[in-house]
Amino acid sequence: MYDIHSVRKDFPVLDEVIYLDNGATTQTPVPAVNAMNDYFFKYAANHGRGAHRLARQTTDNYEDARDKVAEFLNTTPESTVLTKNATESINMVALGIQWEAGDHVVTTLVEHHSNFLPWMRLKEKGVEVTIVGSDREGRVNPKDVDAAITDRTKLVSVNHVSNVFGSIRDVEKITQIAQKGGAMVLVDGSQSAGHMPVDIKKIGCDFFATPGHKGLLGPQGTGILCIKDPDALEPTYVGGGTVHAVTTEGYELEPSPSKFEAGTPNIPGVIGLGRAVEYVQEIGVEDIEKHEKELTTDAAKRLSEIEGVEVYGPKDRTVVPFNVEGMNPHDVAMILDETRKICVRSGYHCAMPSVDMLGVEGTVRASFALYNTEEEVDSLIEGVEQITMLA
Amino acid sequence: MYDIHSVRKDFPVLDEVIYLDNGATTQTPVPAVNAMNDYFFKYAANHGRGAHRLARQTTDNYEDARDKVAEFLNTTPESTVLTKNATESINMVALGIQWEAGDHVVTTLVEHHSNFLPWMRLKEKGVEVTIVGSDREGRVNPKDVDAAITDRTKLVSVNHVSNVFGSIRDVEKITQIAQKGGAMVLVDGSQSAGHMPVDIKKIGCDFFATPGHKGLLGPQGTGILCIKDPDALEPTYVGGGTVHAVTTEGYELEPSPSKFEAGTPNIPGVIGLGRAVEYVQEIGVEDIEKHEKELTTDAAKRLSEIEGVEVYGPKDRTVVPFNVEGMNPHDVAMILDETRKICVRSGYHCAMPSVDMLGVEGTVRASFALYNTEEEVDSLIEGVEQITMLA
Repeated sequence: MYDIHSVRKDFPVLDEVIYLDNGATTQTPVPAVNAMNDYFFKYAANHGRGAHRLARQTTDNYEDARDKVAEFLNTTPESTVLTKNATESINMVALGIQWEAGDHVVTTLVEHHSNFLPWMRLKEKGVEVTIVGSDREGRVNPKDVDAAITDRTKLVSVNHVSNVFGSIRDVEKITQIAQKGGAMVLVDGSQSAGHMPVDIKKIGCDFFATPGHKGLLGPQGTGILCIKDPDALEPTYVGGGTVHAVTTEGYELEPSPSKFEAGTPNIPGVIGLGRAVEYVQEIGVEDIEKHEKELTTDAAKRLSEIEGVEVYGPKDRTVVPFNVEGMNPHDVAMILDETRKICVRSGYHCAMPSVDMLGVEGTVRASFALYNTEEEVDSLIEGVEQITMLA
Repeated sequence: MYDIHSVRKDFPVLDEVIYLDNGATTQTPVPAVNAMNDYFFKYAANHGRGAHRLARQTTDNYEDARDKVAEFLNTTPESTVLTKNATESINMVALGIQWEAGDHVVTTLVEHHSNFLPWMRLKEKGVEVTIVGSDREGRVNPKDVDAAITDRTKLVSVNHVSNVFGSIRDVEKITQIAQKGGAMVLVDGSQSAGHMPVDIKKIGCDFFATPGHKGLLGPQGTGILCIKDPDALEPTYVGGGTVHAVTTEGYELEPSPSKFEAGTPNIPGVIGLGRAVEYVQEIGVEDIEKHEKELTTDAAKRLSEIEGVEVYGPKDRTVVPFNVEGMNPHDVAMILDETRKICVRSGYHCAMPSVDMLGVEGTVRASFALYNTEEEVDSLIEGVEQITMLA
């Protein structure tokens, strides 16, 4: 097991606040920020085929970062497209597949808006969308996915872990079911990558989307889209970097991943992400998962023991959603901040259909990362206890 | 006039190399990088309506950066959309307009691929594209644009400055001509913003696209799309941050700019960009323009006096494209790097049709920024002189 107090030194803001909003974004470790500073101060340039030394070093380090990400997720660099965020990754799939009227998409009620709206919008193109329901703990039964698949189903798009409930999906099983039915599968790994081992080859999915700034500890402005068959997708954007020949008559696209990365990418962000992923690997994702699970289980158990507090999600949840009876979740978050500098998220978590299912106007969500401590859980529990006395 | 030697201290890499590849990307000043470090170490969070202090400070500073950019370009924050790069900005217009078969777009031969391919691709939707030619110096006659406009012309898309020739367009005049003909206008300001005063209200264009990492000195991974009428454009991506209501039946979009910024944005990059723009303002864009013009004019004049060197572009060019007779431009760039650590770009500059017009296999391009010096021009001239002796 890693030394958490030495790890915490790499996240200076943790001296100032109790940061339990890791489901929205994690903090980025000092070594990753240093890698970005090195880029800015020692060799910044545009990437691509520049002949000069800065352009060469920039390109090498950008591609090294891609290699690290691909290795960590167990896929190839060629199929690893670097994007702005998971939302872009998912929209690229929605916009890049050649849809025909009557095609069919299966998703679930328990998705982030970013894995929901892109499919809803396809209705304008005559694509039909089936929304598979879940139980009250945010669990989706793979059999329900199976039942939803028709001979026109082109894609099944599900998250790996719900950001509202922290419920984990059996995405390997869902992938098998969908592919057996002739559909492709997109897994939204926004809440899984970096928090638990993710093996894209083992999952077998056609597309895997994740931000760089959550479990992978990279900076905001980075995302990943892994594409099993790059020919299955047209690029959303075209322009500089995506072509090797252009005339007034037409153009020829580069192979993947270049054809999907139009324009100057977030070079410092990607270099920071590469170093962040290395940092996660050094600590060990299995140990991170174990640590986060301990804190999450303990926090959920203790919160549920407080009178007037309702905790949502299944027992093996990865985040802790809850409400204090008679109080608005934003007020709970605000008081936790004001009284104890505890940062938690509150509201709909960009997943209104999920929260609506609970019949509440939002939840408070505490979510943990590798650097959180038992003492921080203690403070959360004490803080919520005090709030229940106000309510 | 600003003190160039004190400015250079804000760009540490300039102690190591002679950086003349500013047309591809400028360097980012220390104060902008420091602003990003402050974010990472003191208050990093996801933006949006988080109740806790880090989310509030992040949102405030992100929006402050938007305000600074909007003020600098003389437009409103509501119409200033923060993107990944200018390529994304331009593609968002190509994908966001509701095209009908038979609609017409006018662009020119002298565009970056990123302001060329998105229009070429529209042909698949039945949109017709007219490519207005230029003279051998990369100048486009506004009368030719006028002649190309038909009653079906929906958009005229031109750059402000050519990245190949450094030729400046009269975008105000082109905008007047196009709008008189009932068309909208997109100005690609990739090579102008930050290098010369840009006043979007005065230009009057419907869309203005620019990266954050060129004249604006921001980090790579930032771009801007200014939209006069947000209703003219559907968002390319939908998801988290773009909506205020979602049910299983549909969704309601937020107003601009939120509806155009799906997912977690490049928060550190935007904060860095805001500080970088402030830095440009502190120095003064008029003085920057004057300084860069002096270096550019001098370098072009002296290069053209060397036997065996051909310099391209008009007299008022903003970059210096050239070739050494009998030598491949990449070899010229490589030798300048190896012998004098001079960084210049070589090749097609992501603008093949422009370079093809010259009948050459690429050019060498020296491009200057606020921090370059006369001594660096001297070194470039000496370096090229030596190369001509090898050729």
